[in-house]
Amino acid sequence: MCELQVLLVAGTHGNEINAPWLIDQWSNNPSLIDVSGFSVAGVLGNRKAFNCCRRYLERDLNRSFSSALLTDSSINDYEVLRARELVSQYGPDGTDPCQIAIDLHSTTACMGSSLVLYGRRPADLALASFIQASLGIPVYLHEADNSQKGFLVESWPCGLVVEIGPVPQGLLEANVIRQTKMIIEVCFEEIAKIRSGNNSPPNHLIVHRHIRSIDFPRNSNGEIIAYLHPELIGKDWYPLSKDMPIFVEANGNIIRYLEDDCLIPVFINEASYMEKNIAMSLTKRELWSFKPVWLNELNELIG
Amino acid sequence: MCELQVLLVAGTHGNEINAPWLIDQWSNNPSLIDVSGFSVAGVLGNRKAFNCCRRYLERDLNRSFSSALLTDSSINDYEVLRARELVSQYGPDGTDPCQIAIDLHSTTACMGSSLVLYGRRPADLALASFIQASLGIPVYLHEADNSQKGFLVESWPCGLVVEIGPVPQGLLEANVIRQTKMIIEVCFEEIAKIRSGNNSPPNHLIVHRHIRSIDFPRNSNGEIIAYLHPELIGKDWYPLSKDMPIFVEANGNIIRYLEDDCLIPVFINEASYMEKNIAMSLTKRELWSFKPVWLNELNELIG
Repeated sequence: MCELQVLLVAGTHGNEINAPWLIDQWSNNPSLIDVSGFSVAGVLGNRKAFNCCRRYLERDLNRSFSSALLTDSSINDYEVLRARELVSQYGPDGTDPCQIAIDLHSTTACMGSSLVLYGRRPADLALASFIQASLGIPVYLHEADNSQKGFLVESWPCGLVVEIGPVPQGLLEANVIRQTKMIIEVCFEEIAKIRSGNNSPPNHLIVHRHIRSIDFPRNSNGEIIAYLHPELIGKDWYPLSKDMPIFVEANGNIIRYLEDDCLIPVFINEASYMEKNIAMSLTKRELWSFKPVWLNELNELIG
Repeated sequence: MCELQVLLVAGTHGNEINAPWLIDQWSNNPSLIDVSGFSVAGVLGNRKAFNCCRRYLERDLNRSFSSALLTDSSINDYEVLRARELVSQYGPDGTDPCQIAIDLHSTTACMGSSLVLYGRRPADLALASFIQASLGIPVYLHEADNSQKGFLVESWPCGLVVEIGPVPQGLLEANVIRQTKMIIEVCFEEIAKIRSGNNSPPNHLIVHRHIRSIDFPRNSNGEIIAYLHPELIGKDWYPLSKDMPIFVEANGNIIRYLEDDCLIPVFINEASYMEKNIAMSLTKRELWSFKPVWLNELNELIG
């Protein structure tokens, strides 16, 4: 077997503090999370933003890994410099290379524990399939969205985002710490089993495929004029139905979902997405057959 | 009757966005909240912080109203300038004077709807008594805490803070909007009734008197080494009991409440209090008889 090192990133967004706290405790007490058969590089993604409990200082670090930003020497925002630093140190061709990146996030949306994939990279699909088979958690496949790009994990040949919520920004929360720890442990176990060949792949992967995002209703000045209907809060991963209330205006007027297509919302009311004009994203749930080629690609990387 | 103008402040902390949203909607649609018999000046407390969804830029605006900061011309932080501006415009001797200030906040703690008073000013106690008699909401009396001072409402002869939670920072939430609207309406109704003499005072005021705050357990580097025990979350306003778990370390070790005195916690896990070294504040619940002198002072101000 080749050497394998997994990059475990916490605090890519500086106000998502549960994973950074856990990784920090783990570095003080290595028995907290077992790793066997490979190395793990645990890093704090955005230290400056973490120190002042903000998502970012100049630019969202998790939108700073596009090849345009990584290579344009005229752009020197703190987060772009940090993205280049992470790639040059831990990238697959870096000085301390990693082959897989796990990027730990939290959200104010009621997502539970979930995985996010960016595009249909076979190795990502393989790893997500094994984790889903172990934990049963949903997978959000983010693709075909030109307004959102440059995600951290895209700079590694295999990489997943873990999203856990609901939790306010800047708050340590027992349940989120516990879920983050559990999902890290399962990721490590599944990677170790895949490497040892002791793991038969599941038959299927259930994906929630990104269709589009919808914004809050706004007036002509761009100001938000309605909030999310309380019946929708907590309904991430549940299909919308026609005429379901989705927004409420200040005067009580209800705005309904008018489509026949029962799309499935995720990231309902993620606080930091207001600035991205996203009130929620809509997905389609699909059952995909596991493809041996996915595992082949993952094995080539880590086997 | 003299002229009365009430100052209604939203967004004193720029990431508490529900009250600013509601006040903004109200300014576009005056029928949203009725006011009769007096004027209301609705203002956004910290506009610059609100525009970037942060609590503050340089200094907590709601700790910037101490006489030391208001008068020290060598200090020119944005928030101190804003405090001086608010006092010179809307202060009792300002160019557009207000006699009562209502300062609308939200919290990540499970406080429900509540009022906060700073010290035992008779007019504050009178107004809080009427609001509590109408709504039944708890009152936190913050006093004798030298580490926290310079609150906005202290610059007005009568003033209350409204705290509503739980809600993450930066998130519009139906329930918080509804509760904020309700408490504004009850404040206005009670003020109008007091002015008209149509309101007999209640017999009692229940206060939760501040005793002290407790910090998260920390190591010698000042880093937090334990989070709040999940059993404590949501238990604001409920008495602690001896041996009750209050914190959990990463290894699962539980830290218990060891005092005989069953103090009552408030602001359990308010995200922005981590930087103030407050995991929760402890109070004693007391039943105070309503004193006619409280109402006399309020009537002198607004009658």
